[in-house]
Amino acid sequence: MKAIIVTIGDEILIGQILDTNSTWLASELHLLDIQVVKILSIQDTKEAIEHTLATASLEADLIITTGGLGATKDDITKKSIASFLGLEMYFDDDVYAHIDALYARYNRTLTETLKEQCYMPMGTQILKNTMGTAPGMLFHCGKCRIVSMPGVPYEMKWIFEHSLVPELIKTRSDVFLKHRTIRTIGMGETTIADKIEDITDNFPNNFCIAFLPSIGTVRLRISGRGKDDALLESQLQEYSERIATRLSDIVFGYGSQTLAEAIQQKYVAKSVTVGTAESCTGGNISRTITSAAGASTYYMGSIVAYDYKLKTSLLNVSEELLNKYGAVSEETVIAMVRGGLQLLQTDVVIAVSGIAGPGGGTPEKPVGTIWLACGDQNKIKTKKLQLSKNRDKNIIYTTNVALNMLRKYIDAE
Amino acid sequence: MKAIIVTIGDEILIGQILDTNSTWLASELHLLDIQVVKILSIQDTKEAIEHTLATASLEADLIITTGGLGATKDDITKKSIASFLGLEMYFDDDVYAHIDALYARYNRTLTETLKEQCYMPMGTQILKNTMGTAPGMLFHCGKCRIVSMPGVPYEMKWIFEHSLVPELIKTRSDVFLKHRTIRTIGMGETTIADKIEDITDNFPNNFCIAFLPSIGTVRLRISGRGKDDALLESQLQEYSERIATRLSDIVFGYGSQTLAEAIQQKYVAKSVTVGTAESCTGGNISRTITSAAGASTYYMGSIVAYDYKLKTSLLNVSEELLNKYGAVSEETVIAMVRGGLQLLQTDVVIAVSGIAGPGGGTPEKPVGTIWLACGDQNKIKTKKLQLSKNRDKNIIYTTNVALNMLRKYIDAE
Repeated sequence: MKAIIVTIGDEILIGQILDTNSTWLASELHLLDIQVVKILSIQDTKEAIEHTLATASLEADLIITTGGLGATKDDITKKSIASFLGLEMYFDDDVYAHIDALYARYNRTLTETLKEQCYMPMGTQILKNTMGTAPGMLFHCGKCRIVSMPGVPYEMKWIFEHSLVPELIKTRSDVFLKHRTIRTIGMGETTIADKIEDITDNFPNNFCIAFLPSIGTVRLRISGRGKDDALLESQLQEYSERIATRLSDIVFGYGSQTLAEAIQQKYVAKSVTVGTAESCTGGNISRTITSAAGASTYYMGSIVAYDYKLKTSLLNVSEELLNKYGAVSEETVIAMVRGGLQLLQTDVVIAVSGIAGPGGGTPEKPVGTIWLACGDQNKIKTKKLQLSKNRDKNIIYTTNVALNMLRKYIDAE
Repeated sequence: MKAIIVTIGDEILIGQILDTNSTWLASELHLLDIQVVKILSIQDTKEAIEHTLATASLEADLIITTGGLGATKDDITKKSIASFLGLEMYFDDDVYAHIDALYARYNRTLTETLKEQCYMPMGTQILKNTMGTAPGMLFHCGKCRIVSMPGVPYEMKWIFEHSLVPELIKTRSDVFLKHRTIRTIGMGETTIADKIEDITDNFPNNFCIAFLPSIGTVRLRISGRGKDDALLESQLQEYSERIATRLSDIVFGYGSQTLAEAIQQKYVAKSVTVGTAESCTGGNISRTITSAAGASTYYMGSIVAYDYKLKTSLLNVSEELLNKYGAVSEETVIAMVRGGLQLLQTDVVIAVSGIAGPGGGTPEKPVGTIWLACGDQNKIKTKKLQLSKNRDKNIIYTTNVALNMLRKYIDAE
């Protein structure tokens, strides 16, 4: 099956936002073995939309559009598709009931503009959207199917996964495509690739591996394709195990498991509690740990001592020590762990202090100097990072390193 | 001038990489007042490239392609463009001299494959590339110009800035395109649209507005196009002011300013310090406040009392009160503000406690029940939210509401 992805709206054409929707859709369609032959960003005008549908429907079996479904005046995707397919509009009571219920929950009343969203082209197959007001739509145009979804990423993803994929799978051939994802932290993608080269070089033709890096972490996606479901499953199992064994302790999880979820599982299993004492990360370690539902079973809380004085008044880091070594030092983060253990009454504390940037550096301690410490009443391990001047990237990278120290602590227990 | 950007290569079509080149080019062209009417990602086949050039050259005056210029066998952009334009290839001595010098610098010798890069289509205008081996190319096809650049971002950017822009400026038209962005919080896009409908309905034909929503916030982008730069500027100023005046206190900033930056500016100007006492947001309010560089000038820190007991031991919320009203209650968040003011020694504290979900609700306090309080020693304002079961969305939405309460506090001072 050939697919074309179309993003509608001017924000991308003037370079104001990155088209992350298309990349996400392309990777999901690739997993479903659907070949994306073109990705387009076009203007939100009736002419551009109709012209694109006319040409794309000759080149692909599936056209997926995102954007232009809000009720405001600049959103004209729905009307343009209806016009292209020659469909009249009707008032859909189910869509109205959904929006009405959604608004009632927030104690808001439906505006006239919003009622516009309840008019749908005749014959549309509605794709349910529990995350927002505008549903997705599926149209048939000869052999080609046209899909329209909102541009808001979490709405679009929900509709794709829950409402569209079941439709796409209905007409699938009997070729199976299977994946395993191994999640790693603490090693760059090229080093990983070198380390497992002899395994991946000897993959059979129907297997491949993709390296998907983010800041500080790399996902390895192993994919196999074939007609024998059971054989494929066992091959995939074998290759995943060989690779995971080779990479040993940089592997923190599988599939969609996050680092925070992996850590939570380990700490809860061993009944060990955790607290954090943060400075330059400003609460991001705590925020990341608590992103996993159920964190309250082992995570107690954090002292974000962003200000110099709070390191003394709350975490009991002595002024003498701060004056002698500075707030960004091994001695300070060790004292922060000790202060945190006492104040938060947890078994383990992770502490961090550094210069996130872009300003604030000195010749001895340039921007990007960051100290971490992790430990308990008996022993504390430390780590120093020398990062870039990019504030956002530094905070995210440091958070991942902190979580990895927590992971190593519990693995060693 | 109308432009179309074309990215050539499969990595984007399988969702492996984000198309950051196109976004960068779109924003640069926008600054040059060149209207990008379409962005395309296509396969690196001769058919796809020739077909795209044929259709794009009818729709635009400028086609900018990136990718497919390396010397490996899968890179066929140059040959496809030459074939489309009916141009013979010749060996270019200058290109050879450049590559040879580049290789000499790294003590490497030219391979046969690399010599392929020295063959250029007849009549090509070479766009110098000091950052790599493959030069950019500029072709004329009737009224349309076709540009080809490598896909490596730093090479592409160098060629664009140093070799292409001087060419583009030579033939500039005198049509200007200008934008203003107004940033709002606390009102949905449709309600905003209704509120300013009489203004936007009476926009002249050369003006338009776009509503760009994220969780809890909406950006309004007003755009105008015209030949008279000064008139355009004054019209844009007038419409922006009328809309901002109408929307009054939901407007928190302009252009690319974030909510955290806007708040920082106000608090620093009035020398008022801030602290946070968080529960269900797990540190995200603190993390968002400190995402703005320079936050340490007014933001002191946070107590993330995720665990029940820490609300008592750290924030001095009495056990009696917790037993009587529960951790998620107006009384508790007020007590958290009082405890925070004492512990963090700040002028203002914002506190939040709630059930982020997806689990943990009760019939009286369902998932998504969240209480906030913001104030000082003299007065404390509270707010209750009833959100969804989506943990991530609840945390982000609550964080934005918290920041908005901080904004309103300082505006009222």
